[in-house]
Amino acid sequence: MIEKLALIGIGLIGSSIARGARQAGLAKTIAIATRREETLDEARELGLGDIYTTDAAEAVEGADLVILCSPVGTYEALARRIGPHLKPGAILSDVGSVKEHVVNVVGPHVPEGVHFVPGHPLAGTEHSGPAAGFAALFKNRWCVLTPPEGTDPEAVDKLAAFWRGLGSNVETMPAGHHDLVLAITSHVPHLVAYNIVGTVDDLEHATKSEVIKFSASGFRDFTRIAASDPVMWRDVFLTNRDAVLEMLGRFLEDLSVLQRAVRVGDGEALEELFTRTRAVRRSIIEAGQETAAPDFGRPHENGTSS
Amino acid sequence: MIEKLALIGIGLIGSSIARGARQAGLAKTIAIATRREETLDEARELGLGDIYTTDAAEAVEGADLVILCSPVGTYEALARRIGPHLKPGAILSDVGSVKEHVVNVVGPHVPEGVHFVPGHPLAGTEHSGPAAGFAALFKNRWCVLTPPEGTDPEAVDKLAAFWRGLGSNVETMPAGHHDLVLAITSHVPHLVAYNIVGTVDDLEHATKSEVIKFSASGFRDFTRIAASDPVMWRDVFLTNRDAVLEMLGRFLEDLSVLQRAVRVGDGEALEELFTRTRAVRRSIIEAGQETAAPDFGRPHENGTSS
Repeated sequence: MIEKLALIGIGLIGSSIARGARQAGLAKTIAIATRREETLDEARELGLGDIYTTDAAEAVEGADLVILCSPVGTYEALARRIGPHLKPGAILSDVGSVKEHVVNVVGPHVPEGVHFVPGHPLAGTEHSGPAAGFAALFKNRWCVLTPPEGTDPEAVDKLAAFWRGLGSNVETMPAGHHDLVLAITSHVPHLVAYNIVGTVDDLEHATKSEVIKFSASGFRDFTRIAASDPVMWRDVFLTNRDAVLEMLGRFLEDLSVLQRAVRVGDGEALEELFTRTRAVRRSIIEAGQETAAPDFGRPHENGTSS
Repeated sequence: MIEKLALIGIGLIGSSIARGARQAGLAKTIAIATRREETLDEARELGLGDIYTTDAAEAVEGADLVILCSPVGTYEALARRIGPHLKPGAILSDVGSVKEHVVNVVGPHVPEGVHFVPGHPLAGTEHSGPAAGFAALFKNRWCVLTPPEGTDPEAVDKLAAFWRGLGSNVETMPAGHHDLVLAITSHVPHLVAYNIVGTVDDLEHATKSEVIKFSASGFRDFTRIAASDPVMWRDVFLTNRDAVLEMLGRFLEDLSVLQRAVRVGDGEALEELFTRTRAVRRSIIEAGQETAAPDFGRPHENGTSS
């Protein structure tokens, strides 16, 4: 049980934490800080917290757990601002999609006696803003914590217990390793999805209209991925550059091979790859990271999702 | 109302047509032909038709509407085999994902007096086989017909009425144009999804296990696309080569620009693209081609899909 929880930023993730913590009784008082008055008003109308302020320093005053839930690009300035106001013994965490960068920019501003435990819940939808959040967002999803060496294990345990209270499975790993794994599971797929939607957007007008009209499986799914929050994703690519370029390089090498197979009509190579990739899908479903329902469980008419 | 409908191939699409036609009372008799005995037995156990045979020529005997529902790579041999057995006045159609190639390889085997009207229902899931089909698969989905010049308009109308009976919206366009639109909405996205899943499959073992374990939005969605039928997709890339290479070329050009933006840290260019792509998503939802439910409407715990 946390006496005072401070959430800095109240978009999809922040508001889902607020709702989940409230529902599971994980925090006595929830303080919400966000820069824009309108967003704060929206959070207040949704009844997400107990204290509302546009000043992050005020929100963290006396808080036992502070979680940065704003875009990663805002972290450095925020850390500088709130650092002197953090309570001794408090835990400072975040929900950013990159971790090494966060350690580098936030770490120097964390005062002695405050426990800095970066985190990343692997959960989200393509919607943004306080109203998009929901308490069950983190249920059965992973939350990865990347405590720097020498972090107090008790603080890590306390934060892990908080995330488990929200329904997450918690795992700990080095920040650099997190960034590499996420580069290929999340960052490069998003880059590719954004890219293909951009390619369509650049088509001559008539073709583009037809692409939208006849949007089929494949492109349609990419557009969902490419509808994610632009500022958050800009920051991901600005701050996880090396891992993204490394994985993008591998992806492009493989795509050249595939392009050649299409050009020379190498059916065997194509079928071999297309068969191999099915097995990866099965592993992910077995690992409980996905539903086996067809079409992502999109609703179909006449009852079942199939 | 069709007196006798013959379906050559009874996978996801063929079996969905059989179920839909039965449910809507579109055909008096349904003949099902497929090469493999086991698949035929499965179709029989599911009660999908009235006549079951491994000989396509036998199935088309006396049929008013014949639809090829097997992989595109089988069409030429099939057309040669069934051509002489087609009833004068019959309509021959198909469901292949490419159309110019189908016109080229099937067209020469269509006897005088038979109406050849190629078709492509823009519907599917990542599952294959007779059991994966369902009657509502085509509801509110497009079916594109690509009749060659000079085709009897009455035959086109009759086939269009059949697809409308299955719940589809029907549109007619030239085969080459269909292939270009589908290259960017479906074929290149599938190629890219297959490719990224292949890249992961090639990672060193430890990293690969973690990628599967922590599979997040993005990659997880790509694996669904990359779980589609390997033989069908091999044939797509072998038979729509030029349009795929043209669109893949544009995609790669754009990706080079994006790669550079990541490398030099051009946040403005990234944000501009990521904002622009959201609008394309909105257009697709407005066009009724997609659900606005978050996460593709994947089921979440605690009730709603959000």
